[in-house]
Amino acid sequence: MPRLLVVNPNTTESMTAKIGAAAQAAASPGTEIIARNPAMGPVSVEGWYDEAFCLPGLLEEIARAESESVDGHLIACFDDPGLDAARSLATAPVVGTCEAGMRLAPLIANRFAVVTTLSRSVPTIEHLAHRYGVTERCAIRASDIPVLDLDKPGCAAEDRIVEEIQYAIRDDKAEAIVLGCAGMADLPSRLAARCGVPVIDGVAAGVRLLEGLVGLGLRTSKVGPYARPRPKTYTGTFAKYAPEPS
Amino acid sequence: MPRLLVVNPNTTESMTAKIGAAAQAAASPGTEIIARNPAMGPVSVEGWYDEAFCLPGLLEEIARAESESVDGHLIACFDDPGLDAARSLATAPVVGTCEAGMRLAPLIANRFAVVTTLSRSVPTIEHLAHRYGVTERCAIRASDIPVLDLDKPGCAAEDRIVEEIQYAIRDDKAEAIVLGCAGMADLPSRLAARCGVPVIDGVAAGVRLLEGLVGLGLRTSKVGPYARPRPKTYTGTFAKYAPEPS
Amino acid sequence: MPRLLVVNPNTTESMTAKIGAAAQAAASPGTEIIARNPAMGPVSVEGWYDEAFCLPGLLEEIARAESESVDGHLIACFDDPGLDAARSLATAPVVGTCEAGMRLAPLIANRFAVVTTLSRSVPTIEHLAHRYGVTERCAIRASDIPVLDLDKPGCAAEDRIVEEIQYAIRDDKAEAIVLGCAGMADLPSRLAARCGVPVIDGVAAGVRLLEGLVGLGLRTSKVGPYARPRPKTYTGTFAKYAPEPS
Amino acid sequence: MPRLLVVNPNTTESMTAKIGAAAQAAASPGTEIIARNPAMGPVSVEGWYDEAFCLPGLLEEIARAESESVDGHLIACFDDPGLDAARSLATAPVVGTCEAGMRLAPLIANRFAVVTTLSRSVPTIEHLAHRYGVTERCAIRASDIPVLDLDKPGCAAEDRIVEEIQYAIRDDKAEAIVLGCAGMADLPSRLAARCGVPVIDGVAAGVRLLEGLVGLGLRTSKVGPYARPRPKTYTGTFAKYAPEPS
Amino acid sequence: MPRLLVVNPNTTESMTAKIGAAAQAAASPGTEIIARNPAMGPVSVEGWYDEAFCLPGLLEEIARAESESVDGHLIACFDDPGLDAARSLATAPVVGTCEAGMRLAPLIANRFAVVTTLSRSVPTIEHLAHRYGVTERCAIRASDIPVLDLDKPGCAAEDRIVEEIQYAIRDDKAEAIVLGCAGMADLPSRLAARCGVPVIDGVAAGVRLLEGLVGLGLRTSKVGPYARPRPKTYTGTFAKYAPEPS
Amino acid sequence: MPRLLVVNPNTTESMTAKIGAAAQAAASPGTEIIARNPAMGPVSVEGWYDEAFCLPGLLEEIARAESESVDGHLIACFDDPGLDAARSLATAPVVGTCEAGMRLAPLIANRFAVVTTLSRSVPTIEHLAHRYGVTERCAIRASDIPVLDLDKPGCAAEDRIVEEIQYAIRDDKAEAIVLGCAGMADLPSRLAARCGVPVIDGVAAGVRLLEGLVGLGLRTSKVGPYARPRPKTYTGTFAKYAPEPS
Repeated sequence: MPRLLVVNPNTTESMTAKIGAAAQAAASPGTEIIARNPAMGPVSVEGWYDEAFCLPGLLEEIARAESESVDGHLIACFDDPGLDAARSLATAPVVGTCEAGMRLAPLIANRFAVVTTLSRSVPTIEHLAHRYGVTERCAIRASDIPVLDLDKPGCAAEDRIVEEIQYAIRDDKAEAIVLGCAGMADLPSRLAARCGVPVIDGVAAGVRLLEGLVGLGLRTSKVGPYARPRPKTYTGTFAKYAPEPS
Repeated sequence: MPRLLVVNPNTTESMTAKIGAAAQAAASPGTEIIARNPAMGPVSVEGWYDEAFCLPGLLEEIARAESESVDGHLIACFDDPGLDAARSLATAPVVGTCEAGMRLAPLIANRFAVVTTLSRSVPTIEHLAHRYGVTERCAIRASDIPVLDLDKPGCAAEDRIVEEIQYAIRDDKAEAIVLGCAGMADLPSRLAARCGVPVIDGVAAGVRLLEGLVGLGLRTSKVGPYARPRPKTYTGTFAKYAPEPS
Repeated sequence: MPRLLVVNPNTTESMTAKIGAAAQAAASPGTEIIARNPAMGPVSVEGWYDEAFCLPGLLEEIARAESESVDGHLIACFDDPGLDAARSLATAPVVGTCEAGMRLAPLIANRFAVVTTLSRSVPTIEHLAHRYGVTERCAIRASDIPVLDLDKPGCAAEDRIVEEIQYAIRDDKAEAIVLGCAGMADLPSRLAARCGVPVIDGVAAGVRLLEGLVGLGLRTSKVGPYARPRPKTYTGTFAKYAPEPS
Repeated sequence: MPRLLVVNPNTTESMTAKIGAAAQAAASPGTEIIARNPAMGPVSVEGWYDEAFCLPGLLEEIARAESESVDGHLIACFDDPGLDAARSLATAPVVGTCEAGMRLAPLIANRFAVVTTLSRSVPTIEHLAHRYGVTERCAIRASDIPVLDLDKPGCAAEDRIVEEIQYAIRDDKAEAIVLGCAGMADLPSRLAARCGVPVIDGVAAGVRLLEGLVGLGLRTSKVGPYARPRPKTYTGTFAKYAPEPS
Repeated sequence: MPRLLVVNPNTTESMTAKIGAAAQAAASPGTEIIARNPAMGPVSVEGWYDEAFCLPGLLEEIARAESESVDGHLIACFDDPGLDAARSLATAPVVGTCEAGMRLAPLIANRFAVVTTLSRSVPTIEHLAHRYGVTERCAIRASDIPVLDLDKPGCAAEDRIVEEIQYAIRDDKAEAIVLGCAGMADLPSRLAARCGVPVIDGVAAGVRLLEGLVGLGLRTSKVGPYARPRPKTYTGTFAKYAPEPS
Repeated sequence: MPRLLVVNPNTTESMTAKIGAAAQAAASPGTEIIARNPAMGPVSVEGWYDEAFCLPGLLEEIARAESESVDGHLIACFDDPGLDAARSLATAPVVGTCEAGMRLAPLIANRFAVVTTLSRSVPTIEHLAHRYGVTERCAIRASDIPVLDLDKPGCAAEDRIVEEIQYAIRDDKAEAIVLGCAGMADLPSRLAARCGVPVIDGVAAGVRLLEGLVGLGLRTSKVGPYARPRPKTYTGTFAKYAPEPS
């Protein structure tokens, strides 16, 4: 049965636990979910600067899980940070959370919307929508909820998200919703019930896509730009992360 | 465990059997594959005229499987005929073969190529590549093998496909291959071994995507254009296919 | 003088009569309009499921008119169903209603809008706008009038369409209107007078485009994907529609 | 019956005569073709600098024909110079030669090619292909024949064009050809016979499109950017061309 | 030190003086600005017809400045009239006002808006936005102020522009503004102070881009379509503008 | 006079020195170039994995230079790593090397080509070409020279690059060349002389663009996604890089 790394690229362990639980709940019977986060980096990823500082720790976790022979890797952050770097590093397949949501949503809806946290994440998600080829059928909305507020008791996060989903249905003609933050992984069934449209969590979607790739024996192609990094020296703090000859 | 309809929209039963076997081989343990083909229509789908005449029989099979409460439907033809019509008809999720291949290929390759049968199918596949958002990273090649020749003993089909894959790797910088005909569903592992790149069969990919959707409880959204057909009269031969009030 | 088939792909004869009258009124002196509809299929085409079941009858009419040596074929439904299949079947040129409207509108307006019937038709029209290269200059609006209500006395259809045209002028900066249903073929002059912008009926436009093609001796190219269907067996109900060797 | 201005924007009268004859030959019985060229400007339009100096004379001819109440205007140069300016000036509809070819070609071919004169015209035609929405289905080839050489006896122009058409069929998968210079207006039937694919002359196509627009009573919309030029002073040589209050 | 032509293509000398002063104020110390306008042509460029009649005078000024060995040319009108023609004529580099603004804005903002004068200019600016590759990140708004009203004392032009900028910030998520008329060249600092976002004047931007090109020794490439115009005869009024052999 | 940081994101000091010298040579008199590289990270940036590990050191240098009140920042690597993160961090404007080349090249050429080092960099440059809006006019070619080989005496790097430029001129119709690696910053004048087309080094282009922005008083807009990073905790090794309240 597949063993999958679900790596939360921020360092907030409670969020890692929540994401891990949601991933396990979404997995097929027998799939083993290994949920981890880096030791170093930002407590939440909200914009490009945070993203830059999550990458070394994220890639360290990918390398560690590779050495443990996991069958696949899920990057559990909706910005899909480090996805290409992880693909060149790993031999097992790698999937991003936004990627997973945006690959599955068009299978069940002609138009859909992403509801994310802060508006500063919108340009990154727009870029990913272009990359994943869904620009013309995907609206993107920000709920203006900081990532770590998603877990605060008494916070009105869920109501705020419901409101934004309702706008998406009415104004964007969205027929389904992709939740735009890995920290929302516990919400889809409640939101679907409240809003009357399918709600997709990218973490759950990613787990199922990885199970599929593993089951089909598909791994990242190494004949092009996802070939292993060229061996070379890294200096200073990062010396230990230098790519070695394969 | 999920029960999935795999419907070959042409009427060649030997091809249905081959596709069904490949689908079952690709499925998770416990998934039940129901492989069928319509009683009426073309013996192979090669171009737009054939496609038009495969649709009524194809949709009849979708409706029949719905009445049997299957959990998902795979349209096992690379032109993805009737995909939108099937989605509006069914309550279970529906996936197309080309769609499945084009959704999974970008997870493991930056650029890939489709190798199909006849050049007259290329415009349809180009249209689907646009629809699935992979135009910029997907090359399309025809091997000029008629669909039913894929099964003829002594036919050099496999060698011809290998040759075209090699051109795709060299000239299109393809890092992975999607097989462009459901009738090639028995070939991926041999081709991958001969060509050194991942080879994706859309039938297998579609089975795994449907398993994922079923596992996540995701069904086609009915709030937009995939709503059930409006009840109305159909005249003549097609009277029995008229949509009824739900 | 040219003889043109105008084929309404639904089976409602009163609509065929209305379309035929509009086509004849739009034609040059001497052009003969042959207005027909299939014997089998849906009474109106509203969405993908209906569209699938209109195709066999539609193509039967194209084939019949070919055998009568008509000079051109107009598919009188704004979804342009079966356009590619008809082109591969026919030797005379074939034009679609949406296609005709979208080819003429940019000759007289920088931006225009389509006003169609039901919102479930919008995705199909969006796809056609992309195909015909007008996505960036064409807005699409639904009036939420079922197709067959267009003919009901006392129905407020015309007022509803006027209202939507006025929104298009104000909000979409539309400078001209394309009527998004062949069943509106009797309306353009009244609507133009009421709204103050040019109003294009695709049926009329299609008749004139076909006259032009016929006059120039231009027929569908048979060297590519519009080559005649490959001869093969069709089984069951559709046996008689099987392509024969040319 | 319609009276149409066919204006050759260069000052070479022999070319105007040839274009006028082709236009008359392509017109419906009863249509009157008025072929003219400006008194001032370049003897041929080959690139952006020539184009700038053909515009005042071209627009003067449009204005003159308007004052004579023609029913439509065709700009008989494949660069479609001054098309938007002419549309804002005229009340009768205006069509360009490239525009006409690119609007009709997709009615009879899935892919086509333009064969023009000099390679320096290619960027302009690429821009027009984008404007007319055919970029994805249109290849553009230069034959490297200067415009005025098209009329020189003993010049191998026709053979050179045939050669380029054959490359377009083989390498671009072109199913039809659009001739990329109004000075080729006498060639289409001979080229079609030699090359085995439909060959479209934009001048002939434009005449037929104008006949269609006139027949349908369609004129350029004046509610947007094609509104008449704002009245104002022009100084110096151009004083007489200043827009007057309507 | 570089000597730059700043050519206002309309014939309003007070506007030329204002533009020249703004250009000089924006230039590096030592750069010499030569501000000129043609003797013949429209007093303002508002739409395609005016644009056509500004070109001969504009190109005459480019040629004159070339003969005086200026180091670069700026076309000081937001429609960028004659940009390609000027590039083929000149050996020194040529930059357009809209081009300059649209090249610099993305260096400091993810999304920006153009605020121009009349709505009839919007389609031209949309075309330029496509040409300069900023369509997806640029909104375009018209203030409905005629060009020459920008200089009228007591005219509320500035307030009207401020209002439109505020809409752009709120509704288009614009993070910076490009002023959409060379006649606004005196406004950017006041508008930036009032509105709280960077405001870019294309004239100032163009001067700085030309200084950069000159400093790097970069001139328009003459190996492709910007090669000098082919020598030929121009007849009538324009005889003196005929391209000569180089 | 402006003080500009030119930050080489790899740790090879000899390359930093070469880039710094080229930047100083390209700068206006009086501009001060501060060339630096991080202490930690890869010795060259060749692909996504290296890029991830250059970011923390790169951003540390941006922050340090900000604290020294530099007037602008140039990221001297053709992958433009960390460009968005740097823009949110800095108050001075930030420009990327690829960005600078791709913004200037269209000012002097209709089509151009990038000639880079390794083919594994091509997808990143393709992405940047899309981002900077030049996809349709830019070809991308790899010379298959590792970055650090550019400095090896006796290495045939320059001849290899010349060969690829010649292919670009002949096959891609390139009219100008952008050098696709900051390590080629010493080559443009020699290559231009050998190849007969303008050759643009992005480092030089970036210095001039920054001078222009600084001269115009333009800084990155802080009202949208380039707002300063939200204050928060970074854990472990990266604690000291945590964004502080402004």
